[in-house]
Amino acid sequence: MTRIKLTIAYDGTQFHGFARQPGVRTVQGELESTLQRLLGISVEVHGSGRTDAGVHARAQVVHWDQPFGPEGTRYPFVLQRLLPADIIPIRGETVEETFHARFSATGKTYRYTLQRAAMEDIFTRRYCWHVPGHLDLYAMQQAAKDLMGYHDFTSYCAAATAMEDKHRNLCEIRFESRDTYLNIYFHGNGFLQNMVRILTGTLVDWGRGELQHSPAWVLSARDRRVAGQTAPARGLALWQVEY
Amino acid sequence: MTRIKLTIAYDGTQFHGFARQPGVRTVQGELESTLQRLLGISVEVHGSGRTDAGVHARAQVVHWDQPFGPEGTRYPFVLQRLLPADIIPIRGETVEETFHARFSATGKTYRYTLQRAAMEDIFTRRYCWHVPGHLDLYAMQQAAKDLMGYHDFTSYCAAATAMEDKHRNLCEIRFESRDTYLNIYFHGNGFLQNMVRILTGTLVDWGRGELQHSPAWVLSARDRRVAGQTAPARGLALWQVEY
Repeated sequence: MTRIKLTIAYDGTQFHGFARQPGVRTVQGELESTLQRLLGISVEVHGSGRTDAGVHARAQVVHWDQPFGPEGTRYPFVLQRLLPADIIPIRGETVEETFHARFSATGKTYRYTLQRAAMEDIFTRRYCWHVPGHLDLYAMQQAAKDLMGYHDFTSYCAAATAMEDKHRNLCEIRFESRDTYLNIYFHGNGFLQNMVRILTGTLVDWGRGELQHSPAWVLSARDRRVAGQTAPARGLALWQVEY
Repeated sequence: MTRIKLTIAYDGTQFHGFARQPGVRTVQGELESTLQRLLGISVEVHGSGRTDAGVHARAQVVHWDQPFGPEGTRYPFVLQRLLPADIIPIRGETVEETFHARFSATGKTYRYTLQRAAMEDIFTRRYCWHVPGHLDLYAMQQAAKDLMGYHDFTSYCAAATAMEDKHRNLCEIRFESRDTYLNIYFHGNGFLQNMVRILTGTLVDWGRGELQHSPAWVLSARDRRVAGQTAPARGLALWQVEY
C-alpha cells in the first residue's frame, strides 16, 4: 500500500459539506467516486476535518491508501480533468504510512471574509458575507484579544455539538483590511462545530454595538445562547492545515 | 410614463445570456418577471446590448418605462431582495424620455481576464480563462496596437453574424497585470458578436507563438477562419457603458 497526501481547494457553494453522506453531493463523495473511476477499486479518503455545507477550502488536506496507481506528485495533473470544476487538486505527495490527514495535523487556519461596501461585488459574492454599514473595528479587535488563548468555547459552538471537551487553544485572530474587504484569520489547534462562524458573527455584533456582554463573560457563561449570530457559511474558507 | 435607468451587475454563469428567450433563464427575462411581480403590470426592459451565455457584467445598463412605481434612485434597495442573487442592482435613476440604454450609448468597455498561474484559483475560476504556460506579452501588445482603430472586423466576429457593416472603431486595448492575472480592457464604440472573445483568443494564440499571420493580414482577409480561437465566455465581463 502507498499513502497519498493531496491538497485540494474547493468552492463549497454546491456541496453539502465535506463529509460523505448518502444521496447528496459532498467533497469526500466526489473524491472517492473519482478515485474509484481512476483506479478501478474503492478507496476511503480521509480529510483533515469536515467543513460545513457551503464552506470553501483554499487548502484542505486529504489522504488515502492505494495498492497501485499514480505517484503522489502526478495526482494534480491526473485529477484535474477528472474532478468536477469546483474541486481543484493543488499538490500531491507520496507520504509515509505514519502520516494521517487528521491526526497528524498540528494546527489549522480559517479565513472569514466580510464585504463592507454598500453593494455586493458580483465577482466575490459567493465567498463573502455582505456587511454594509458601520463596524467599530477597534471594538472587534479588543474583543478578539480576549478570545485568543486556551478557553472553554462552549458558548461559541453549535448547541447540538456532542458531549466532549470544549477546550481549544485559539492561538490567533488576525484582521486584514483590503479595499472594501475585511479578512479575519483564525489560527488554532482545533475548532468546534460552527466555532469560526459563531466567533465571526459575535465579533460583527460587537462591531455594530449590538451585543452588550463582554467576551470574557460570554466565554464564562458556557451557553451558546449568550453569544451572537452565526455568520453565513459562504464567507468561510479552510485556509491552511499545518503538519 | 416615467423612464427608469438601472445599472446592474450579473454573474453570467447560470444565464443563457442577456436577451429574453422562451424556456431558458436570461437576465432580461429575470428582470422583466421581477418588475411584473413588483408593479403588477408587464414592462419591456431594454439593455445597452446583449451579452452571450456565460458572459458577466460589472455594469450593464437597462431602461424601461413605467406608468407608476418607485423613483429611480429607490430601485437598488427595492430590487435587491426581489432579484435572484446573481443579479445585483447597483444604481437607479429617473431619466428623460430621450434616454435609451442602447441608442444613447456612446462607447463600451469590456474586460477579459486571464489567470496565468499553474493552477486555477478556486475563488476566481468562474470569472477567468485559465492560461498557464508562457505568453509573450510583448508580442500581444504589439498585435493589439495593430488592431486598434477603425477597421472591418469581419475576421474577428462569429462567422454566422448577420449581413451588416462590420466596421467598428476599437479605440483602445489596454493590458493590466495583477499578481497572476492579466486583464485586457477593450474600449470601443460598438462590438460585433463574439468580437472580444475572438480578439482575446487570437491575442493568446499570438502570445503562445501559435499563429503566424500578422494582425493586419488577418484583418485584411475578412475571414473568421484565419483568426485564432474564441476565448471562453467565463473570462469576459461587460465593464462599463458610456453615455
